[in-house]
Amino acid sequence: MSLLIVGTVAFDSVETPFGKTERVLGGSGTFAGYAASFFERPRLVGVVGSDFPDTYLSILEERGIDVSGVERKEGKTFFWAGRYETDVNIRTTLITELNVLQEFDPVLPENFRDSSFLFLANIDPALQLKVLDQCRNLEFVIADTMNFWIDASREALDEVISRIGAILVNDEEARMLTGETVLQKAAKKILEMGPKIVIIKKGEHGVMMFTRDSFFAFPGYPIDEVKDPTGAGDSFAGGFIGYLASKGTVNDETLKQAIVAGSTTASFCCEDFSIDKFRNITSGELLARAGNFREATSFQPLDF
Amino acid sequence: MSLLIVGTVAFDSVETPFGKTERVLGGSGTFAGYAASFFERPRLVGVVGSDFPDTYLSILEERGIDVSGVERKEGKTFFWAGRYETDVNIRTTLITELNVLQEFDPVLPENFRDSSFLFLANIDPALQLKVLDQCRNLEFVIADTMNFWIDASREALDEVISRIGAILVNDEEARMLTGETVLQKAAKKILEMGPKIVIIKKGEHGVMMFTRDSFFAFPGYPIDEVKDPTGAGDSFAGGFIGYLASKGTVNDETLKQAIVAGSTTASFCCEDFSIDKFRNITSGELLARAGNFREATSFQPLDF
Repeated sequence: MSLLIVGTVAFDSVETPFGKTERVLGGSGTFAGYAASFFERPRLVGVVGSDFPDTYLSILEERGIDVSGVERKEGKTFFWAGRYETDVNIRTTLITELNVLQEFDPVLPENFRDSSFLFLANIDPALQLKVLDQCRNLEFVIADTMNFWIDASREALDEVISRIGAILVNDEEARMLTGETVLQKAAKKILEMGPKIVIIKKGEHGVMMFTRDSFFAFPGYPIDEVKDPTGAGDSFAGGFIGYLASKGTVNDETLKQAIVAGSTTASFCCEDFSIDKFRNITSGELLARAGNFREATSFQPLDF
Repeated sequence: MSLLIVGTVAFDSVETPFGKTERVLGGSGTFAGYAASFFERPRLVGVVGSDFPDTYLSILEERGIDVSGVERKEGKTFFWAGRYETDVNIRTTLITELNVLQEFDPVLPENFRDSSFLFLANIDPALQLKVLDQCRNLEFVIADTMNFWIDASREALDEVISRIGAILVNDEEARMLTGETVLQKAAKKILEMGPKIVIIKKGEHGVMMFTRDSFFAFPGYPIDEVKDPTGAGDSFAGGFIGYLASKGTVNDETLKQAIVAGSTTASFCCEDFSIDKFRNITSGELLARAGNFREATSFQPLDF
């Protein structure tokens, strides 16, 4: 089924104990789009500056990602620089230059407006609403957000939350949104705000999915070397929505599988800088790791 | 199969946002023994002082726990007092009085020496070795330890680790033991020290089990209210070894089930002070929660 992803396309400069990159391809739309492309051909909406190389867009196009919704504006591309410590959970942002992202006003190409599945990556909720307003055939929407918008744009964010099927937050954001410390209590409160599904990302500790009457918990995949966790959350979202879009059906079983698909793409994302690992794996390798995940979490019923 | 548990029997005074207890029944042997008693009738070895009420021992006896190995010494019982914050991961130890535990020298009753399954709770590794020396029929041993012994008694601890089937550590201890930050690398190094199984406890984030050729990850059960997490780790160990002892067979499948059994007993432990929750649940309730765990973690293979 048709899948639309709206997010950032950016330059990232990243330092980790494993190396250093300079202005490589990054951004939430990039990671989510590439991860989704293992399952479905996504349509991508974002903005880049006049300094953005065509070769970067070609990398996405060659994966079957429709980049006709990536607007090119006069000016410089969104740029983020950060450093991770040996404990990759500790991240320091060194530079954030919004550049052309400041004037981002997503206008969907006409042929994108009938998309059935949509991932709204972490951008201003006012823009997320503009995207929702332009779509006329949505079946399932998942949106991401961050602490900044919870503080600064709560009203618009609440409207987004009331209009989507699933929200993706980390544990800190779930607590900020609700004032609840206990995650499943926070999840229940968010469900009352509208969405049918709340997904709480816990990084290396995996992910939890709550609906009104079910719960699914999935542990993190232990990878040998987290070279660069940048984009892991967006890669999760991309794998998740890409899998659902490829199935075309959202039910308890496909949702669980989509969590596994997203966890798998997120685990690969961390194994190299930028989207480098994605570019070096096949669908077969992805399927094999998802199979390992299943082996590593399944058990027979207790019997005593 | 016969199961022996060697650990502490203690008075605990605990403060949490949900309440306060004064000198209630605690200790690693108590929590592990009670948790194990859902599956098998454990034999318990420990020490208490002359101030220890018979009623506390009766509580254990009534569960079918053989307390004939709990020595009563002149003096005061081991006493621990602590406080948990709203984020129950933050714990402050207020008082630790070793009392009679200082002279604990575990001597196993003759009829305990043929035990096949053994849990060595967190005590001085020199004493853990003394227990191992007295057993003549062991099939499977799991031992717990802590940062204090890793620092202070490394040689004895290494000998313990070389003589057991499974070791139970938290993430910090796994890193201390090996100098490895990445948990699965730490686990591999510990496996090289002798045990066939390394179990890493991650508290609310669940548990990971590593063998030389397999990996099992299990998420934490989201309970609504963590009233008091004291004893959760020992309740995990008790449920784990109790389940294995009741099956009498240690293989990939029973090990996975034992992880689930332990996770289930640990989750109940946190729902009330001391062993109060255990005293109010049936085996049926335990089995039902383990079933919920399975529902909340199982999924069909990916298909794309």
